[in-house]
Amino acid sequence: MKIQRYKHESEYSYTLGMSLTIELLVKRPQDVSQVFISSSIEKNKSFEYLEQLCKDSGIPMETNDKIFNLLSAKGNCFVIAVFSKYECMLNDKDHLVLVNPADAGNLGTIIRTAVGFNIKNLVIIAPAVDIFDPKTIRASMGAVFHIDFTYYESFKEYRKQYSSHFCYSFIFSELSVPIKEVSFKQPYSLIFGNEASGLPEEFSSLEKGQAVVIPHNTEIDSLNLPIAVGIALYTADKDERASR
Amino acid sequence: MKIQRYKHESEYSYTLGMSLTIELLVKRPQDVSQVFISSSIEKNKSFEYLEQLCKDSGIPMETNDKIFNLLSAKGNCFVIAVFSKYECMLNDKDHLVLVNPADAGNLGTIIRTAVGFNIKNLVIIAPAVDIFDPKTIRASMGAVFHIDFTYYESFKEYRKQYSSHFCYSFIFSELSVPIKEVSFKQPYSLIFGNEASGLPEEFSSLEKGQAVVIPHNTEIDSLNLPIAVGIALYTADKDERASR
Repeated sequence: MKIQRYKHESEYSYTLGMSLTIELLVKRPQDVSQVFISSSIEKNKSFEYLEQLCKDSGIPMETNDKIFNLLSAKGNCFVIAVFSKYECMLNDKDHLVLVNPADAGNLGTIIRTAVGFNIKNLVIIAPAVDIFDPKTIRASMGAVFHIDFTYYESFKEYRKQYSSHFCYSFIFSELSVPIKEVSFKQPYSLIFGNEASGLPEEFSSLEKGQAVVIPHNTEIDSLNLPIAVGIALYTADKDERASR
Repeated sequence: MKIQRYKHESEYSYTLGMSLTIELLVKRPQDVSQVFISSSIEKNKSFEYLEQLCKDSGIPMETNDKIFNLLSAKGNCFVIAVFSKYECMLNDKDHLVLVNPADAGNLGTIIRTAVGFNIKNLVIIAPAVDIFDPKTIRASMGAVFHIDFTYYESFKEYRKQYSSHFCYSFIFSELSVPIKEVSFKQPYSLIFGNEASGLPEEFSSLEKGQAVVIPHNTEIDSLNLPIAVGIALYTADKDERASR
């Protein structure tokens, strides 16, 4: 296998760094084809754990400094794993739906937050950034390996498969209700649009849906997408625990 | 004045792009020394507004393509303003306190969120990233020009000056109370630590203080800093409006 810089269309991607690689080896060892280490890696406890994980799963570990120059812009990376991109199955519990997310770092931050607030199903409506972009993996702090996701060509296609979820569209419209007045019914789909353009207007009146707004003053045009998603996940999750 | 790439220690900085430059010219015209435009700028309504703002404040506008190659990594920037770094005065209302923030983009995102949720006083405890880093300005979407800030050498120095604020330290400790159980008393200081290391332990037992935690599951080590700040600002602000 020829190692190349990450591309959206590649069939494999990389974890750059020790903690991301360990998360990958713990969660998805079956998808890892190779681990590279730098000759200047420190042989500490983490390294021993990494070695053990590779041994347990029969994954070859190779010292190769050239790979680091090719794949890692930063000098502080001493471990890289190569893994095949994989697909997941969603379940019927709560979903987070991102329509056309465009920024790799934002996607990773959102995944980290979703996992922390107990959302394990991520729906991504294309066109969208690749969940396996190394920038997404890094921003997720490895949480990307804890979430199940599926890409759909359209929201309609997703909705055909999951028609019983209560849809909460985060959009500013005449129909929007402030989030603090919303009592989230389960299973829910929390739906967010693209960083720059938000959700198209039709999302404000979905069947079995409610348009929701997070109120803020007019000194800013909008909240940053991961911040809005974070507040929604936190609020919906709080609501869930309160109702148990 | 010789134009150089932004440095932390420079006495001036830049806004890269039309909307940031307009925000600057509206809010801080007295600090702007020069506006540069690219020869390929589109002469639309925004441009006319920019021209008017410069004229109103007697700020020279110059076409200069070289500057763009020097200062802007991206090809989609057609306006740059040069401005002197300035200092602000805080007031006695609610404060956001960031102890040793290290990431320029995070700081900008936090400022955007703070302004949206009605916090106009930002305290930064050094060592810290520069609030005038062009990355901070960009991530703030111009909100940096809507907030008053002060750098302090230590939290103690800040506290000496503002001793009557109720301190809410966001830290995981035995003394921490879940955020949903906190009733924020005003004027408050919401206090957050560095991205990697969080707040030092002494912040969990400040005088006139309360340690607060945003509960999440153990699948992630911590929330991303801007997400945690966003949830706290949203919650504290909601509380405030509810009490009016």
